[in-house]
Amino acid sequence: MDTVGKSVKRKDALDKVTGRAKFIDDYTRVDMLFGATVRSPEPYIKILSIDTKNVEKIKGVIGVYTAKDIPGKNIVPLVLPDYPFLAEKVAKFAGQAIALVVAETEEIARTATKLVKINFKKLAPVFDPLESLKNSAPKIYGDDNIFKRFIIKKGDAADAFKNCDVVVKKTYTTNYQVHSYLETQGMLAELTDNGISVYGTMQCPFYVLNAVCDILGFTKNNVKIVQTTTGGGFGGKEDVPSIVAGHAALLAYKTRRPVKIIYNREEDFVSMSKRHPGHIEIKYGAKKNGKITACNVRYILDGGAFATLSTIVLWRGTIHAAGPYEIPNVSIEAIAVATNKVPCGAFRGFGQPQVAFANESLIDELAEKLGMEPLELRLKNALKPGSSTSTYQKLSSSCGLVETMKKATNSIGWKNRKRVTVGVLRRGFGMASGFYGVCLGAAGKFLAKAGAHVQIQQDGSIIIAIGNTDMGQGARTILSQIAAEGIGAPYEMADIVEVDTSRVPDSGPTVASRTTVMSGNAILNATKHIRQKIDKVVCEILGEKSSAKVTTKCGYYHMGDKKISYFDAINECYKRRENLTYDGWWKEEGTTFDNDTGLGDAYIVYTFSTVAAEVEVNIETGQVNILKIASAHDIGRAINPQLAEGQIQGGALQGIGYGIFENLILKDGKILNPNFSGYLIPTSMDIPEFIKPIIVEKKFTDGPFGAKGLGEPPLICVAPAIINAIYNATGVRIRALPAIPERILAESSAL
Amino acid sequence: MDTVGKSVKRKDALDKVTGRAKFIDDYTRVDMLFGATVRSPEPYIKILSIDTKNVEKIKGVIGVYTAKDIPGKNIVPLVLPDYPFLAEKVAKFAGQAIALVVAETEEIARTATKLVKINFKKLAPVFDPLESLKNSAPKIYGDDNIFKRFIIKKGDAADAFKNCDVVVKKTYTTNYQVHSYLETQGMLAELTDNGISVYGTMQCPFYVLNAVCDILGFTKNNVKIVQTTTGGGFGGKEDVPSIVAGHAALLAYKTRRPVKIIYNREEDFVSMSKRHPGHIEIKYGAKKNGKITACNVRYILDGGAFATLSTIVLWRGTIHAAGPYEIPNVSIEAIAVATNKVPCGAFRGFGQPQVAFANESLIDELAEKLGMEPLELRLKNALKPGSSTSTYQKLSSSCGLVETMKKATNSIGWKNRKRVTVGVLRRGFGMASGFYGVCLGAAGKFLAKAGAHVQIQQDGSIIIAIGNTDMGQGARTILSQIAAEGIGAPYEMADIVEVDTSRVPDSGPTVASRTTVMSGNAILNATKHIRQKIDKVVCEILGEKSSAKVTTKCGYYHMGDKKISYFDAINECYKRRENLTYDGWWKEEGTTFDNDTGLGDAYIVYTFSTVAAEVEVNIETGQVNILKIASAHDIGRAINPQLAEGQIQGGALQGIGYGIFENLILKDGKILNPNFSGYLIPTSMDIPEFIKPIIVEKKFTDGPFGAKGLGEPPLICVAPAIINAIYNATGVRIRALPAIPERILAESSAL
Repeated sequence: MDTVGKSVKRKDALDKVTGRAKFIDDYTRVDMLFGATVRSPEPYIKILSIDTKNVEKIKGVIGVYTAKDIPGKNIVPLVLPDYPFLAEKVAKFAGQAIALVVAETEEIARTATKLVKINFKKLAPVFDPLESLKNSAPKIYGDDNIFKRFIIKKGDAADAFKNCDVVVKKTYTTNYQVHSYLETQGMLAELTDNGISVYGTMQCPFYVLNAVCDILGFTKNNVKIVQTTTGGGFGGKEDVPSIVAGHAALLAYKTRRPVKIIYNREEDFVSMSKRHPGHIEIKYGAKKNGKITACNVRYILDGGAFATLSTIVLWRGTIHAAGPYEIPNVSIEAIAVATNKVPCGAFRGFGQPQVAFANESLIDELAEKLGMEPLELRLKNALKPGSSTSTYQKLSSSCGLVETMKKATNSIGWKNRKRVTVGVLRRGFGMASGFYGVCLGAAGKFLAKAGAHVQIQQDGSIIIAIGNTDMGQGARTILSQIAAEGIGAPYEMADIVEVDTSRVPDSGPTVASRTTVMSGNAILNATKHIRQKIDKVVCEILGEKSSAKVTTKCGYYHMGDKKISYFDAINECYKRRENLTYDGWWKEEGTTFDNDTGLGDAYIVYTFSTVAAEVEVNIETGQVNILKIASAHDIGRAINPQLAEGQIQGGALQGIGYGIFENLILKDGKILNPNFSGYLIPTSMDIPEFIKPIIVEKKFTDGPFGAKGLGEPPLICVAPAIINAIYNATGVRIRALPAIPERILAESSAL
Repeated sequence: MDTVGKSVKRKDALDKVTGRAKFIDDYTRVDMLFGATVRSPEPYIKILSIDTKNVEKIKGVIGVYTAKDIPGKNIVPLVLPDYPFLAEKVAKFAGQAIALVVAETEEIARTATKLVKINFKKLAPVFDPLESLKNSAPKIYGDDNIFKRFIIKKGDAADAFKNCDVVVKKTYTTNYQVHSYLETQGMLAELTDNGISVYGTMQCPFYVLNAVCDILGFTKNNVKIVQTTTGGGFGGKEDVPSIVAGHAALLAYKTRRPVKIIYNREEDFVSMSKRHPGHIEIKYGAKKNGKITACNVRYILDGGAFATLSTIVLWRGTIHAAGPYEIPNVSIEAIAVATNKVPCGAFRGFGQPQVAFANESLIDELAEKLGMEPLELRLKNALKPGSSTSTYQKLSSSCGLVETMKKATNSIGWKNRKRVTVGVLRRGFGMASGFYGVCLGAAGKFLAKAGAHVQIQQDGSIIIAIGNTDMGQGARTILSQIAAEGIGAPYEMADIVEVDTSRVPDSGPTVASRTTVMSGNAILNATKHIRQKIDKVVCEILGEKSSAKVTTKCGYYHMGDKKISYFDAINECYKRRENLTYDGWWKEEGTTFDNDTGLGDAYIVYTFSTVAAEVEVNIETGQVNILKIASAHDIGRAINPQLAEGQIQGGALQGIGYGIFENLILKDGKILNPNFSGYLIPTSMDIPEFIKPIIVEKKFTDGPFGAKGLGEPPLICVAPAIINAIYNATGVRIRALPAIPERILAESSAL
């Protein structure tokens, strides 16, 4: 192939390194106003009245708006209809939006928010999800505080445990994780001749489209959502941008002037989504030979005040909760619970990092109890082609888990690894494996589709409009490669235009590592149709009879010995007035998972991963130094190996943060460290010298050129691999993330 | 039908009457600069040097740019490569752009243009096209000053004239006509992440796309041209906006800031295109019974300094030069000539109003000589279904010329008309007929195509993206009707998005009364494909087997007795993840005209027209008062009768202007009256009380719901009908347009 499989230059590289790329805060409009948000000061209140008189008198303040000013529906459209754009009678978490101030400048707007007086009565809150499940808890969602509950029952786990030689059972907990995207949330809304356009940083323009249509009561052909260059998402720009966009749209609608809202870091911390804290009670039972025969999981997610994506995050966690192993008897119960805290939502991994931490920690604990080598235990139980997952999904040939296990461990010298178990600096080795269902799967069936408008211009340049976004992960480059390869054009000729919801049909969200597969396949569907026309013309020009044998190579269409250049062929097509434009389409087919039985094919395919880590632990300070990370992934096919490696390296760093750095602290429902001085993430100084990305390519028949997804997997297994290595070095078993020095020291002293 | 054939409300009505519609001068950008143009002071100069030193020192001036600053090609891309964006060595007309000043404000920019010092040497110019054809003339284009020459030879005209009983031969001339659009030329260019976007008032975004790509050397997927609400075009925004856009793009590229250029009325007059002055020598020969057997035409167009669209304007004039009559022997020679004056280009009618004035005046002169009633003579010779045109094109059944003759004349009481031939106020009656080739025809074959992106959103609202523009003529409304009818949706659900060259493939220009047919058919091609999917789902829901029998009525899909609402059906399609999006396409097929022989099918179909007029002439002042205009047109099908009537009424008024008001005066190649105080157009006070629009519907099989085009025909026959009526009233035969009072008095005194 000419382009696919090659590490061609990122399309956005030059703009980003030169600073030319325009992020939403770089956008300005003449007459533009700024919007700022008035937020609930307490985690659970009844709103008695909102006094805005003092504020409206301030010079530069244009208006203050509350729930009663919304012309459409005051519900953020997503899964469950519980989250209002602006709190009306009650606010359920500290930081929830209650009112909006719009003013001539950002400074005036922010200052004015402090003068909006909310008269309220405090209500009794609940913060702990386990408390929230009790009958005695205050009811903040429905009559049981449960957003959603899933069950999987494969075989008979209770019975199987009776026949196990070895049983291990532990409880693991994980904390929040903050997305820490470089660019905070921000939107700019402006009225147009026939409706409204909203520009901003986001992952899912069609969610934003629904939100803006709903809050204003507009039809969807009068609203245009445009994604601007996005400085990171990681799931944190999946659903919550809908709120920011709805607010900006409301203010533009009311003032008839362009309105921009840019969150500062603190309000982004207190109000935007987070990775769910997880509580996982997990039990594995095995035979003496190491064959795992039973698994039991109880998985509780702390959803926060509103459902947002908790149901879907929970579902994905449930499907993967038994780990990447073939276990004949599995019983899983998973519950997402409401609490009076910031709502949790999507985050790279989407409910899996929590359970993966539990699975892969407990596998090591099981290995120790069995007296087996952890790699050997994993290899014995690993999912392989033909294996059946815990939902009875039979795996296809695109299952390279074993290869990832071997390659990752080899890469850090697993076989001859040398622990250091004496002195201040201890050294240990750990590994963790995982699998990841690519795309939305059965739970997101109605959204499991994508469109792509592909249009070849007369000069051979190619316009590609898609519904999925590039938030920094490289979609613009990868999808341009796929289009160029499909058409037979030079890579430089193809590019993706800014994502605009009026260009393509609803293509679902940009999440779930689905973009390469979904938009890639939609593009290939389009190029296939366009190629039929080109090939016919090529045949005619080259004087051949059948169009079946046209091949492409290095910018030429070939038929036997004859050839014509890409540019000449396109020009000939234009002379013949051929329409070199097509709206491609792709939808996931074949998932059969049934919510009632908890069984069936959950996803169209899985990515398989293994991370191996070598760490050094200072047993006097509790400080962990990551020496080596090897991260291997079966992604079907790397469209652009360098970008795939970048994803793996970035995921490793974010996984290190999750494992040993990032520690959000809440007290009485309020975040105490809502900024980067208090919430530590790995910096460039914390990058291990050795992060080895390893790509395994077991082709996925239905993927574009065999590709699966890679966005999320690189994060998932990092924390458990490190935690296992810490144990290996020190004998300290950390069962609560993150493994910050204080915790390591505390656990260590308990030994 | 639910929508087609109904006078539904214009989509743009509310925005325009409330003033909300944004024209290009309403657009602003933060940091925006203004561009102004330095123009040639004389009609023909050699540029020795350009001194910009004084200008660059002025506070607020950012830069001055000349031809040498153009990174791409310095040629406006159109038909012949002769017109530079900025004059480099010579300037060929007074008003030609030589340099551009860009400054912080419009005032500074305009003032600064006066300080750019052009050192030049005057060259000997030529102004008269007949002079320009002489060997002795200075050569300003090629070696003969001829942009193009066309010949038609049908039968043997020379021989046929010998056997005629009556021969009439006269020479007619016409003056310039200025488009007089309410909104002058204007563009705003701004760099984007991956290229440049240009917004502005225009008819033909793909011409502008070509121009911007060429001047900057950009590929077509990096340039986006967006048409803003356009305040009239009439052909005056066909090609010349490319120059303004090229200039704005160059300035934005150089300054890296948004740049707006808005022409004031005077520079719009002196530099933008005009209707070509025409010189027509015409001869008809007939038998005693009135059968016209021979026609000879020599048609000279004064093209001005650059070719622009002269070749195509000339071609259309040539095809129609013998008039709407079946004449067995025709000989036509047509020549477009270069002169040192403002370049002429497209104007409603496109070369036909000039020849129609000559044809229809001479027909009346022939009728008088034959002693026949003018209507009778026309009916006898009129093109009818099955007739052969002067290029041997055999007409289809969509040929209602005779009906238009009868209905127009009936409508003003032709049969019992009462001339007043005594006293100061004389009263007379006149008529004129014409035909008009719809769409581009054989000469524009490569452009004879159109695309349409149609996308139904989940709420049933419909996004339609096309490549043709609404410049006020109503395309947005008409095409929304066609889409709604094709889909079976309520009209309110369909709307056209702003025209943006990155949304659809090059769909040719918005000219030649082609938009309803071309974009209409492309939309129907899209809706046909989308309906296949909807119909299949409707069948399944209604439990029927074949999708063949789904019909639509009042927002429901029907199958026999069963029905489902449009909205329910769309929702069901979304649930099934059907892609309700399609890129429709249409191209003209079947024109066979051959430039060498001058014979063959020139157009896919013709619109047929007759105008009848009753006028009152004050023989002491020469003032003409139009009492009645009846204007009948066979347009195949009126998609929106009220809008069709509006087109007819507007065309009548512009035709009145052409006939008796509009008189551009040039002296030594310079326009003496470049504004509306000196160049008079009809005002609301000049509208006749009685303008009767008459629609004849002889369906065109290949048109959308049978429609042909109507944009231009309403203007064409108005002037000759009035001129014939003036003769009928006064005995004064005006053979040079416009028939201003001075000319009528002069001709009258010569009697």
